[in-house]
Amino acid sequence: MEIPSLSDIKRAHTRITKYIVRTPIMTSQTINEMVGGEVFFKCENFQKVGAFKMRGASNIIMSYRPEDRVNGFVTHSSGNHAQAVALASKVAGAKAYIVMPENAPQVKKDAVKEYGAEITFCEPTEEARVAACAKIMNETGAIQVHPFHDPRIIAGQATCAKEFIEEYPDLDFMISPVGGGGLAAGSALALSYVSPTTKMILAEPSNVDDTYRSFKSGKLVGVDSPESIADGLLVSVGKLNFEIIKEHVSEIYRVEEQEIVDAMRLIWERMKVIIEPSSAVAVAALLKNKKQFVGKKTGLIITGGNVQLDALPF
Amino acid sequence: MEIPSLSDIKRAHTRITKYIVRTPIMTSQTINEMVGGEVFFKCENFQKVGAFKMRGASNIIMSYRPEDRVNGFVTHSSGNHAQAVALASKVAGAKAYIVMPENAPQVKKDAVKEYGAEITFCEPTEEARVAACAKIMNETGAIQVHPFHDPRIIAGQATCAKEFIEEYPDLDFMISPVGGGGLAAGSALALSYVSPTTKMILAEPSNVDDTYRSFKSGKLVGVDSPESIADGLLVSVGKLNFEIIKEHVSEIYRVEEQEIVDAMRLIWERMKVIIEPSSAVAVAALLKNKKQFVGKKTGLIITGGNVQLDALPF
Repeated sequence: MEIPSLSDIKRAHTRITKYIVRTPIMTSQTINEMVGGEVFFKCENFQKVGAFKMRGASNIIMSYRPEDRVNGFVTHSSGNHAQAVALASKVAGAKAYIVMPENAPQVKKDAVKEYGAEITFCEPTEEARVAACAKIMNETGAIQVHPFHDPRIIAGQATCAKEFIEEYPDLDFMISPVGGGGLAAGSALALSYVSPTTKMILAEPSNVDDTYRSFKSGKLVGVDSPESIADGLLVSVGKLNFEIIKEHVSEIYRVEEQEIVDAMRLIWERMKVIIEPSSAVAVAALLKNKKQFVGKKTGLIITGGNVQLDALPF
Repeated sequence: MEIPSLSDIKRAHTRITKYIVRTPIMTSQTINEMVGGEVFFKCENFQKVGAFKMRGASNIIMSYRPEDRVNGFVTHSSGNHAQAVALASKVAGAKAYIVMPENAPQVKKDAVKEYGAEITFCEPTEEARVAACAKIMNETGAIQVHPFHDPRIIAGQATCAKEFIEEYPDLDFMISPVGGGGLAAGSALALSYVSPTTKMILAEPSNVDDTYRSFKSGKLVGVDSPESIADGLLVSVGKLNFEIIKEHVSEIYRVEEQEIVDAMRLIWERMKVIIEPSSAVAVAALLKNKKQFVGKKTGLIITGGNVQLDALPF
């Protein structure tokens, strides 16, 4: 797998632009005062399907010629990526097969069904997911859309940082959470091309700190059955993703579960926008390390806003 | 009391413009599809203090010369208006006295205190509030800022519809909730001046339908100890406000409590923005009467986003 070039990212942006929202960038006087610097929030919670995942999924799916889409697309995910693959497939006129663990929340099953995708349930283990996915590919000829470990996903997610820099070319820092690393690697890579003076910082729950540990040791390590309220980040960082992160990320900060909940509540209360726990990881990292951001311009990616409203942590 | 002129509204806008946020206008494909028409949301939940109330309060307070502000301002309210008077006074360098019932939620007491206002607690009755307010005026010389029954408040709240029409001059309808009628009358009045072809529609909880009954009978009637989740609308419409509403409002729709909760949840889930129950009243009226809005352009004022997150109705 090759690291995407600037040209790949630009072509991704052109390819997906009519299928995604150019999300607004918000500010909050309260947060600026708390930090002592300027903070800009790129609101991917207002993106289609409520998360940045629509960028990468659209980039893969739309990169196939119509005649190559006839067998549809398949992925295993119970989260935002599943919705993104379902919607992007629908828009492309293709069938989507989504493998989900039986115990996925009803609201996520409903969201995927609403986009017309076919759900296959499996045991809630990694092995069962992969097996179910392989079975569908064999039976249908569907093309797999990996949630993060794919240069086309990375190039697609990179368009978010690209838009950010187009509107705010003088950011000192950019912060995003890291899970599998599609957005994290994409953002760092985009900055390295279009704004190398902007430092990329990642935020990770201490409970799922495989990227932090890999970054510090220089050696890719995974994480087993992690538990965190940041349900979008419960995966180990991908190999290609980590290669890019190792090269282009400035620092990784870890945050605790209560800090994530507090940050989420703060944004809800003060900015009146709904962010999901995974996004709050980045906000918590900002607040926990605010000394670094005093007097600076910091761009923070609000990655998504999909939250189960009847199971809030407050 | 005189009905504000267009010139009054324009001067209000000039006067307050640097103290308020020119709030963004959002759209939602989901809502457009549900309605079968185009709906535009003016997001006053992103306004200072999280509600449109900042407009009217600023207009009154900033209309006094600095030397006339020395004794401060007083109001009785436990809601968004209290926060608006507190913040506008602070910005004006004046003292704010807020009369609140003892049983007001802690979060509202804290918000007002944060703006440096002095709180006087009283029994949770209308008489006690008025008496406490009068006492403060006598003792301090503070100027009262009524939450809705004042032409300067109406002119201030009218600036929201004015901004709306400046950006979307071809709205067929505008919808706002109605409580005391500051925003409702202000919006209807602004439309009558700057966009007389836009029909003003009000939304009211069935549980607090004094404006509806007044509108239908042509005679101002009040409401006693109303109960509704729409805590910003638990007051009877003002006399001057009703005069304007009677003249310039096209229709008033009533909605039930469950419809308010459902509409609130819908906006949270689909638009990822936090709206308070009073705003959801307008959304519920839109959805309940959607036939009227098919193929039309409708502007809806999201009045505020102040919600107690640990006491949600879902």
